[in-house]
Amino acid sequence: MNDTNLLNRAADNIRILTAAMVEKAKSGHPGGAMGGADFTNVLYSEFLVYDPEDPKWINRDRFFLDPGHMSPMLYSVLAMSGFYTMDDLKSFRQWGSITPGHPEVDVMHGIENTSGPLGQGHTMAVGAAIAERFMAARFGEWCSHKIYAFISDGGIQEEISQGAGRVAGFLGLHNLIMFYDSNDVQLSTDTDAVTDENTAEKYRAWNWNVIEIDGCDPVAIRDALALANRETERPTLIIGKTIMGRGCVTATGENFEGKCSTHGQPLSKSGASYEKTIEHLGGSVENPFVIFPEVVGLYARRAEELKKIVAERKAVQAAWEKANPELAAELHDFYAGKLPELDFASIAYKPNVATRTASANVLSYLGERVKNMVVSSADLANSDKTEAFLKKTGAFSKGNFKGAFLHAGVAELTMASIMNGILLHGGMQAACGTFFVFSDYMKPAVRMAALMELPVKYVWTHDAFRVGEDGPTHEPVEQEAQMRLMEQLKNHSGKHSVLVLRPADSAETLVAWKLAMENSDTPTALILSRQDVPDLPSATGNRYADALQLAKGAYVLMRDENPDVVLVANGSEVSTLVGASEILHGQGVRVQIVSVPSIGLFLDQPQSYRESVIPSGLPVFGLTAGLPSTLLQVVGCKGKVYGLDHFGYSAPYKVLDEKLGFTPEHIAGEIAAFIGK
Amino acid sequence: MNDTNLLNRAADNIRILTAAMVEKAKSGHPGGAMGGADFTNVLYSEFLVYDPEDPKWINRDRFFLDPGHMSPMLYSVLAMSGFYTMDDLKSFRQWGSITPGHPEVDVMHGIENTSGPLGQGHTMAVGAAIAERFMAARFGEWCSHKIYAFISDGGIQEEISQGAGRVAGFLGLHNLIMFYDSNDVQLSTDTDAVTDENTAEKYRAWNWNVIEIDGCDPVAIRDALALANRETERPTLIIGKTIMGRGCVTATGENFEGKCSTHGQPLSKSGASYEKTIEHLGGSVENPFVIFPEVVGLYARRAEELKKIVAERKAVQAAWEKANPELAAELHDFYAGKLPELDFASIAYKPNVATRTASANVLSYLGERVKNMVVSSADLANSDKTEAFLKKTGAFSKGNFKGAFLHAGVAELTMASIMNGILLHGGMQAACGTFFVFSDYMKPAVRMAALMELPVKYVWTHDAFRVGEDGPTHEPVEQEAQMRLMEQLKNHSGKHSVLVLRPADSAETLVAWKLAMENSDTPTALILSRQDVPDLPSATGNRYADALQLAKGAYVLMRDENPDVVLVANGSEVSTLVGASEILHGQGVRVQIVSVPSIGLFLDQPQSYRESVIPSGLPVFGLTAGLPSTLLQVVGCKGKVYGLDHFGYSAPYKVLDEKLGFTPEHIAGEIAAFIGK
Repeated sequence: MNDTNLLNRAADNIRILTAAMVEKAKSGHPGGAMGGADFTNVLYSEFLVYDPEDPKWINRDRFFLDPGHMSPMLYSVLAMSGFYTMDDLKSFRQWGSITPGHPEVDVMHGIENTSGPLGQGHTMAVGAAIAERFMAARFGEWCSHKIYAFISDGGIQEEISQGAGRVAGFLGLHNLIMFYDSNDVQLSTDTDAVTDENTAEKYRAWNWNVIEIDGCDPVAIRDALALANRETERPTLIIGKTIMGRGCVTATGENFEGKCSTHGQPLSKSGASYEKTIEHLGGSVENPFVIFPEVVGLYARRAEELKKIVAERKAVQAAWEKANPELAAELHDFYAGKLPELDFASIAYKPNVATRTASANVLSYLGERVKNMVVSSADLANSDKTEAFLKKTGAFSKGNFKGAFLHAGVAELTMASIMNGILLHGGMQAACGTFFVFSDYMKPAVRMAALMELPVKYVWTHDAFRVGEDGPTHEPVEQEAQMRLMEQLKNHSGKHSVLVLRPADSAETLVAWKLAMENSDTPTALILSRQDVPDLPSATGNRYADALQLAKGAYVLMRDENPDVVLVANGSEVSTLVGASEILHGQGVRVQIVSVPSIGLFLDQPQSYRESVIPSGLPVFGLTAGLPSTLLQVVGCKGKVYGLDHFGYSAPYKVLDEKLGFTPEHIAGEIAAFIGK
Repeated sequence: MNDTNLLNRAADNIRILTAAMVEKAKSGHPGGAMGGADFTNVLYSEFLVYDPEDPKWINRDRFFLDPGHMSPMLYSVLAMSGFYTMDDLKSFRQWGSITPGHPEVDVMHGIENTSGPLGQGHTMAVGAAIAERFMAARFGEWCSHKIYAFISDGGIQEEISQGAGRVAGFLGLHNLIMFYDSNDVQLSTDTDAVTDENTAEKYRAWNWNVIEIDGCDPVAIRDALALANRETERPTLIIGKTIMGRGCVTATGENFEGKCSTHGQPLSKSGASYEKTIEHLGGSVENPFVIFPEVVGLYARRAEELKKIVAERKAVQAAWEKANPELAAELHDFYAGKLPELDFASIAYKPNVATRTASANVLSYLGERVKNMVVSSADLANSDKTEAFLKKTGAFSKGNFKGAFLHAGVAELTMASIMNGILLHGGMQAACGTFFVFSDYMKPAVRMAALMELPVKYVWTHDAFRVGEDGPTHEPVEQEAQMRLMEQLKNHSGKHSVLVLRPADSAETLVAWKLAMENSDTPTALILSRQDVPDLPSATGNRYADALQLAKGAYVLMRDENPDVVLVANGSEVSTLVGASEILHGQGVRVQIVSVPSIGLFLDQPQSYRESVIPSGLPVFGLTAGLPSTLLQVVGCKGKVYGLDHFGYSAPYKVLDEKLGFTPEHIAGEIAAFIGK
């Protein structure tokens, strides 16, 4: 057992590094990080199991930071653990450094998740804890490990923590251990200006094991972590009362702890003395970027312990693999992201069904074949049709992870963030569904998935005003354009940060799912209809083969000789164009109909292809149930888009089609007027 | 006291009407509405104080429905209260009816809020309760009234209910009485597939007064409401155990209550018998759209009681008004939406400051003058500079509403929804702030504000990658384009559903605030810079006068004779264009610089004005720190936009300016290349 003085010395070392990093960067958040140092030090020096030589070891414990602004604390303890150099700490928050202001997922440097938007970090931990239990249920408890999370007052307040708390308690995620760094200070005020909740009681109401301790006392921290590690039924919340800016003093050496001003700026600007504080903590102002020799020793001893622990666990795994070669192969496939052979062309569907129904057929197929896939719905499984997957697998319940379906409850953001955590854990595939209009609730987690390059599949159904009777609150209008902004936004790897696909019929839905499953680099959005849509005509007689052209973002669905006009749409509006073209044919108008499920992919194509699909010499008419601007990038300024530029209304969708002008008859008239016929 | 049998009969009447409405509409949600009927009936027949002859009476009690899908319950009880006819109920969910699938705010028909997206309805009630206390603190307890809310299992699960629960408990909103219709069934499953939280304990942890009752028992409901009405310290949660599809029977007359299938479809499709259920409840299948004579009597008696209650209260108000003529005038101005004289031109600011700082000057000015304005921040008051308003007013605290600032805590969506509720109450002005990137969290409530046409002012600061060191999680890129989709989306009155303004310097910030305060029809988004920006040159010598042209969405900031190119931007990028133009002048290039704070307003202008600002014969170059498509609608397809098409990075913002090419030098080069010079 490590000496308390040594642990305190190591925590002071984290505090010194933290203060120095922020001071050197001239920006950042020292106060919270200094308060959380005691916990972080005990966790990394005595509990967290990882392999310094193999940071991606599948059975490592994971540490999920929620308050990303406390990054200097994490970088410092990871430096002690061998993941960062002092030069890395010195380049905190600078261009090109591996120590950005908020941590960005980087497992090779011990960073399990991107953080910053409060609340999402610990919700991702819930997802990772689900993934861990999922694996243990399939391969055995030998692969069990702990998921640690670190949350602050802000994360506790964020709405999402209610979803995370409920789900973790409901599922009995005893492998989840969360430290609440309760320092009673937040960015703009003390917490008592904002809340008087009894956080312990709140988490107990969610069936958590709650332990309350002095969060600055390494012995109390150790005891709490030990207790939490022995818990077998419930997630654990360790509420540690900590001190914002622990160790801070003024120029005259007076205590300057617990001050809001140390939250978000260098100590020298906060009212504390940076120099006196460094000295007070036992550091050197001239060279604060030092790990004390005794702290080097502490972490060296831990490294030796870890070698033994890891070796033992890897030996257990090796023995298991030998005894279970087929399961072992499956395990390796899971973690390699290798999918089974999937023949999307073989998936049967009834004629002329809603694309959500075609999607259900795919989900049913995947439920039988993709053994590491989790699907979730925010209480709409029977509407978004993810229940097709549920029927092939089964739902998670308390302590039971044999199924593969998460009933997320009415908590869309939580669901999306949990999906991120499931994928961050590794070894998993993940999809989740709800109504498209509620993608609004999910956006903050979609953006994080996009930034982290996590291949979540979003199943967004009820994609237009044809939701009908439920009215404007349930009718997406701006949402497709909104999500396509993420298609325009490139991730750090230069790819569309989200692949956005709105298929036009069942065949396109199969192909869209094919692309989604093949896309291991980014999230994929599948935007699906509530209402039935006719199967589109096939130029080749093989509609699935035609639909494979979806991979190019857009393709020619129908082409008359010498067309007078190019008609462009996606989703169920394509069939409206087909209907309109029949009327136009009767008027001698020749058309070229283009389906454009992904604008982003289409704009990536070579000019020659784009020209073949939407020839520049022809007038272009676009049809969308979304905002007209949804199609602006493909239709061009000279073209015309018929869309919806206002909120929807409550009425049966066929009435809305009439009233809003989305009938073949009306659209044919619009097209004829546009081309002057 | 009303006879229990009569109350049960009235509740059955609501159940019959509900079942009939959904059956006739062939869609809707009968089950929950049938379960909640007992509460609703007692509330409306015995407790809710309103004036049937003056539905907008300022001191009426308000009823906020959270689960909008339970609308038939509300429409039915409102029909009994005289707000709807049987024909209205028969046209439920039909085009043009005043009984849409989810209620849309319509005070003249007793609908206080639009609902549908779960969780927001009761959060708006929290806002209304704050407004009520705000008024009572200023004008006296004579104007006090109750805010009732009705929440279901879904709303309890939505993340936002944590924010609403915390804020209401923290502020001690004893005027808020919420009924939790706990029927243990949600859309796709029973609740026990999703949650095992102890909801009573959770709300007690937030310092609510929690009462648990049989929610089908009118006597228990009455007792609970009476108790809640006497509470003086805490909000009250009445947890009523109710029965999904109460009264439903099958074709053979067997009980069919508590079934998930009755949640979201006509009874005839759920497994229940519609006809037998109507009969079982004492109605007529031939003509279910009837209010029973004894129920007519019940509500007629209540109407008589209300006459007396209302007359008494109005007499008290009249006496108060007579005794306090100045306060009375102020009260009437508040409710009339009349602002004091505001001279935005008089607001002083330092040269060359960040637009968030100029905004602080405005907020300080408003804090002194606009006495019915509430401002809030999600724990960023010192960063988004709403603290300028706080300093002039003071923060709300438990039982103390003398101030006008709400510390919302780290709960952006809750904050936005509370603002909606404050405005729905009436008599108030409301603004709230956070970082622009976190507008993502607020979108669902922004959409509701847009739909309800509520003039919330959003103060979104840190508007671009120049957030700098905090990195990509904190750097908005797609957010301006995203919010401008709401500018494109028209509300039911045909206006831009959100007015979106990104001012370029301090003068434009003053004018943007002027437009925001003058805009009483829609929300206004103010998108403001973190970093200092130079004051722009004035063509007339009066920069404020120039900036008044903001009302046209865009205007010419600088114009050389016979310009070679039109340069378009908004926000801090305008000053970059000014800098670039100085370099271009040295190369003999003549420019016309356009500031376009609102694309939507600009596109509304007559062609002649648009042509004068962006002449069609000239090449157009746009500059934006957002996605290039942000400016596509004004720059046009032949123009070029220099923007950011990828996530940002963590580094000092001046480094990012260099690395990402947002310096005058680099932009001058881009412009020169574009026009081939």
